Amino acid sequence: MSKIRLGVLGGGGDSLIGVLHRVASHMFDRYEIVGGVFNPNYEDNLKFAKHIGVNTERVYTDFETFVDQEVKKPKDERIEVVSILTPNFLHFPMAKKLLENGFNVICEKPLTTSYGEALELEALQKKHKAIFAVTYTYTGYPMVRHMKHMIASGELGAIQKVDIQYYQGWINPVIHDPEVRKTVWRLDPKKAGISSCIGDIGTHAFQMTEYLTGMEVQSILSDLNMLYEDNPLDIDGTVLIRFSENVKGVIRASQIATGEENGLTVAVYGKKGAFKWEQENPNFLYHMTDDQPKRIIKPGNAYVSDVAADGTKLPGGHPEGIFDAMGNIYKGVAKALRGEKAFDGEYPTMNDGVRGMLFIEKVVESHKKGNIWLSLDK
Amino acid sequence: MSKIRLGVLGGGGDSLIGVLHRVASHMFDRYEIVGGVFNPNYEDNLKFAKHIGVNTERVYTDFETFVDQEVKKPKDERIEVVSILTPNFLHFPMAKKLLENGFNVICEKPLTTSYGEALELEALQKKHKAIFAVTYTYTGYPMVRHMKHMIASGELGAIQKVDIQYYQGWINPVIHDPEVRKTVWRLDPKKAGISSCIGDIGTHAFQMTEYLTGMEVQSILSDLNMLYEDNPLDIDGTVLIRFSENVKGVIRASQIATGEENGLTVAVYGKKGAFKWEQENPNFLYHMTDDQPKRIIKPGNAYVSDVAADGTKLPGGHPEGIFDAMGNIYKGVAKALRGEKAFDGEYPTMNDGVRGMLFIEKVVESHKKGNIWLSLDK
Amino acid sequence: MSKIRLGVLGGGGDSLIGVLHRVASHMFDRYEIVGGVFNPNYEDNLKFAKHIGVNTERVYTDFETFVDQEVKKPKDERIEVVSILTPNFLHFPMAKKLLENGFNVICEKPLTTSYGEALELEALQKKHKAIFAVTYTYTGYPMVRHMKHMIASGELGAIQKVDIQYYQGWINPVIHDPEVRKTVWRLDPKKAGISSCIGDIGTHAFQMTEYLTGMEVQSILSDLNMLYEDNPLDIDGTVLIRFSENVKGVIRASQIATGEENGLTVAVYGKKGAFKWEQENPNFLYHMTDDQPKRIIKPGNAYVSDVAADGTKLPGGHPEGIFDAMGNIYKGVAKALRGEKAFDGEYPTMNDGVRGMLFIEKVVESHKKGNIWLSLDK
Amino acid sequence: MSKIRLGVLGGGGDSLIGVLHRVASHMFDRYEIVGGVFNPNYEDNLKFAKHIGVNTERVYTDFETFVDQEVKKPKDERIEVVSILTPNFLHFPMAKKLLENGFNVICEKPLTTSYGEALELEALQKKHKAIFAVTYTYTGYPMVRHMKHMIASGELGAIQKVDIQYYQGWINPVIHDPEVRKTVWRLDPKKAGISSCIGDIGTHAFQMTEYLTGMEVQSILSDLNMLYEDNPLDIDGTVLIRFSENVKGVIRASQIATGEENGLTVAVYGKKGAFKWEQENPNFLYHMTDDQPKRIIKPGNAYVSDVAADGTKLPGGHPEGIFDAMGNIYKGVAKALRGEKAFDGEYPTMNDGVRGMLFIEKVVESHKKGNIWLSLDK
Repeated sequence: MSKIRLGVLGGGGDSLIGVLHRVASHMFDRYEIVGGVFNPNYEDNLKFAKHIGVNTERVYTDFETFVDQEVKKPKDERIEVVSILTPNFLHFPMAKKLLENGFNVICEKPLTTSYGEALELEALQKKHKAIFAVTYTYTGYPMVRHMKHMIASGELGAIQKVDIQYYQGWINPVIHDPEVRKTVWRLDPKKAGISSCIGDIGTHAFQMTEYLTGMEVQSILSDLNMLYEDNPLDIDGTVLIRFSENVKGVIRASQIATGEENGLTVAVYGKKGAFKWEQENPNFLYHMTDDQPKRIIKPGNAYVSDVAADGTKLPGGHPEGIFDAMGNIYKGVAKALRGEKAFDGEYPTMNDGVRGMLFIEKVVESHKKGNIWLSLDK
Repeated sequence: MSKIRLGVLGGGGDSLIGVLHRVASHMFDRYEIVGGVFNPNYEDNLKFAKHIGVNTERVYTDFETFVDQEVKKPKDERIEVVSILTPNFLHFPMAKKLLENGFNVICEKPLTTSYGEALELEALQKKHKAIFAVTYTYTGYPMVRHMKHMIASGELGAIQKVDIQYYQGWINPVIHDPEVRKTVWRLDPKKAGISSCIGDIGTHAFQMTEYLTGMEVQSILSDLNMLYEDNPLDIDGTVLIRFSENVKGVIRASQIATGEENGLTVAVYGKKGAFKWEQENPNFLYHMTDDQPKRIIKPGNAYVSDVAADGTKLPGGHPEGIFDAMGNIYKGVAKALRGEKAFDGEYPTMNDGVRGMLFIEKVVESHKKGNIWLSLDK
Repeated sequence: MSKIRLGVLGGGGDSLIGVLHRVASHMFDRYEIVGGVFNPNYEDNLKFAKHIGVNTERVYTDFETFVDQEVKKPKDERIEVVSILTPNFLHFPMAKKLLENGFNVICEKPLTTSYGEALELEALQKKHKAIFAVTYTYTGYPMVRHMKHMIASGELGAIQKVDIQYYQGWINPVIHDPEVRKTVWRLDPKKAGISSCIGDIGTHAFQMTEYLTGMEVQSILSDLNMLYEDNPLDIDGTVLIRFSENVKGVIRASQIATGEENGLTVAVYGKKGAFKWEQENPNFLYHMTDDQPKRIIKPGNAYVSDVAADGTKLPGGHPEGIFDAMGNIYKGVAKALRGEKAFDGEYPTMNDGVRGMLFIEKVVESHKKGNIWLSLDK
Repeated sequence: MSKIRLGVLGGGGDSLIGVLHRVASHMFDRYEIVGGVFNPNYEDNLKFAKHIGVNTERVYTDFETFVDQEVKKPKDERIEVVSILTPNFLHFPMAKKLLENGFNVICEKPLTTSYGEALELEALQKKHKAIFAVTYTYTGYPMVRHMKHMIASGELGAIQKVDIQYYQGWINPVIHDPEVRKTVWRLDPKKAGISSCIGDIGTHAFQMTEYLTGMEVQSILSDLNMLYEDNPLDIDGTVLIRFSENVKGVIRASQIATGEENGLTVAVYGKKGAFKWEQENPNFLYHMTDDQPKRIIKPGNAYVSDVAADGTKLPGGHPEGIFDAMGNIYKGVAKALRGEKAFDGEYPTMNDGVRGMLFIEKVVESHKKGNIWLSLDK
């Protein structure tokens, strides 16, 4: 089968997200990177293309040229899907132009910088029937997919409580220094948008909530913390959530949780059972019930669901990590592009991206209005 | 040194709380149980007294007689302190009469069934200068005391985020059966008071919050869940807390967290460091900072604080448990009764009990009024 | 039911083992300490008796007097069972005289200082039909008893591999200093006998091996380490074991495992399943099979065996520890003394003590003879 | 910088080892797979080459042709290094011919099927000054490299005890069925060589021992288990090891450790400190000392050594796994091929492979001769 022709915008130089996507795209021999704009500077761009072994003929000066030139190529040569790995504010114009010209897109999260932009992209995607993935990476872990699948199969019974945490401590050394906190782009509304903590990691927690349960959050009430008067953006927040009158939960996010590295944790409690999982230990999934010993589910074993098995390359006890999770998302997109049969949820969609933006806006609004309930209906 | 003469109200028969207090009182050879009312039925009462080796001469028919007879005895024979282990609604009348007659008291939590009663007891205690302990057992663990001590010493710097969880799943098999949930005393407002989950375990989480940080929670906003229309009492709740404008936190409690046993967990984040601890693994305390590896602090080692060392009977690696935690609380009360030098926080006080009742009432009120902020000023 | 009259030899002053046995004996309201010799010095002895609330009339100057006086008392007043908590070399003469005079005995491990002495005690015990417990404390944990029970019930199938570790690091700061290592009684053959590491902790690992599996080790081959030429006693050793031609295992013990506290760990592999357990985390038992997720078995839950339930005082999630383990052993002895129905293995017996001594002697012999196989047939 | 021209022998079709090496070689953009023999069947071979995007011009019918044709190419086009991923018995003839013709080699473990062959390869490698890596994958984990580096820097002081375990349970369902165990290649001496358990995983444990400590094992004494009379190869074994008179250790390996997946664990105890690590949790390294709390070292943090940092692509809390470990080995080989400055131990060498074969032979010999000590001097 011929490889999928992949273009890449951003991700050059020392970009970590660039490495992550590049390795992921190679993982199942489904993609070939055939062109892109890796760096704003054209010299660096060409140099980087050579470094990663991409033919420089399809390395362009800027993304407009990229689109204009690629669209002229015959269909069986043209780039099929484009990964957007640039700073957040560029996601919208790039995705817009790509969709308008018939390209499929893999976009880093957050999808855009506002809910309005997100809705615009969604309309374009529907119009052009494009494949559009938003890389909420953590959904690529086999144990996350196993949870989603087992919850959908009724393993836990009706969900009655959801508790998702995303705690980091990295901003701690930044936030307490009045001079330093002024200079960090994450805390500058012009660059980071209306939220720091919720926008960056709270949105992951929210997406995970809806991804795992298959349910939509109906309303939220938030309390954010800026810590200092002169800091405009939240660096910590707790969000009460309601799926319906009697199904509730909580999303907790923080960038001042001193000593936490990347502490995304999941607890979903149903009438019949529960799942607990931690991103830093992604190959251990805890399944609990009222009356039996807690079970530790691990990938690579014969007892796991087909979707978990599909996302694991080696037998049990050979730990795979976050590169492998992203690899699974790329594999899911490949299946979609080639019209192959896929499992539910093999890549996060435009809808995840749109709801993520809605969540950010409503959480900030709830806090500003005095911690009131707001609806999350689109 | 002569032993402290201890009286016991309740805790007879198969009572688990009775075993816990009895073993704890023996642990440091400081107490002798010399009398009490263990059972409402006098025959059972006598039988039980013989069973545990208490002279039946000072086993009384009821608590009024207990007080009336004991108070007539000469001071050096009279019972010095009385443990109240009865159902919650009896705490108040018993404690009241005991305080009025000059006895010291060790009372199970919750202190009373209303904040008003709690205030009345507090006034009596102050008037009579009594020693009064409320047995929030988990404060007796050496690692909890170590946390409190190190936080007070500034090890974590200024506290900036507190997250306390108390999740259980035991009510799960009860709550989903319309017939069963009608018959459980925990869910009957006449017997259990105004709250199930917050009243039973949320109050532990709240007490732990103030105990560890040495700070008072200023205001709360709560969202409770009753799950079913015909169930009047909360069986799950999340409480946003504020210590001050910029120091916030969350208390999470549930009795429908399927598969959880007794999941009290603590996370306190300061500017310089953080502590994490789990009650089910009480001998492992995690100390985190921004720039150093996470450390696992364990009791019985030379590096722990004096207060932790004082509460540990054996060298490192010999796990002590919840009986030992309660033993430490009894030891703390013994020091107070004998006027010995003690560490800060060796037993939870009347103030813990009073604030616990205030918390329960305000949490229920906040929920009923539409999840609004309420002050916790006494 | 009347309490069992308990005498105690040793364990006075600041003795840790004294606290452990005293608290344990109180735990189920089955024993009353009515006399003993707690300290060699009579003044200290009396003072200590008062401190722990024992009537000084039955506190004796020495153990010979203790036996001579107690044996004269009428049967229904006489001490029924005696706990020996003295230094090791006194176990034999004390136990001998006690057995000869018709007393039952609870003896700390190791039983004696030589296999010959152990055999002599065993003969006496049989002759006098005495109850005789050797307090290998770790067998008192509910999860250890659950393992033993489930293995006997065939849960694991035929045992095919056993791996028991007991690693400590406490001797590390001692052993490397030529002056200090000369002065420590543990390393002095006159005081400690023929072995340090195997005698103190290897013997625990060995007893656990036979206790759990219900099988006898047939032969051993050992390699010991003294680390320094001038140190006569082993401070580390590995012992290959064979239960039969094709059922093998390994016992690993060390006092130079830097940073280990009290690292007794158990792994028993059968044809159908396996158990893993760690003493420092005694309430978590791991049950593994070929084709199902690993399960975490915890005490206090309805699914555990009756023997585990019998050794747990509180519901799931309320951690009990080593005092509770010893309490269970005392409870087992109480059942035996009163002729009550008991589970298999509720207290370690004379046979455990005798085989423990045989193990120590053969391990040292194997090493000295050049690491050869030796039989453990009694 | 131009990419390294990589050839691959084996690893076609559904080969897991093929995926592992292919993804690893891409990870740092250092290699391009330009040719090889992926499958014995030429049609499959071509098909697979197309599948993974390799130009079929340099896909050969067999490895002899591969070498003969490649060696004729000009130096700047010729394949520079060849990965051998075939069944074990082909390693030797392939590596031999490759070395004789001036190629560099990356060879899967075990290096050969006999120690004699290994020595022959070593002589050839020295003669031709070739770069030769043996892919003991687990040495690629950042935390393993950190251990090696810190031990070399003296962080643990003099090593005094090493305990390495490699337990699996996969052979359990095979070994107990007399029919099945006859048909498995792993248990057939003609296909698997003289050992199953030691040859497959014991050798990993041995290599890890010498890799981490930087010391050579001087002598060994082994006890193996075949479990059944009709099974010729060991499926379990314990090996006593001595580095010198007073520095000892134990290597434990099993394929009948029911329920274990890939349980390679490491414990290295020195005079000043110790490291513990588990392969299934590769991002958590435990550092212990006598007098300080245990520390948990994690990759991606500023406090780790340069060699650990070099082997980690993302910040702390983003788990990398076994693909990333193999990627680090390929990166190490790339540095060697390009003459770049590298850390000590960035890829396992010919010497690791040779000593691995010596270990296997001596372990089997020790067991057969009645569990005697044998020297491991080359």
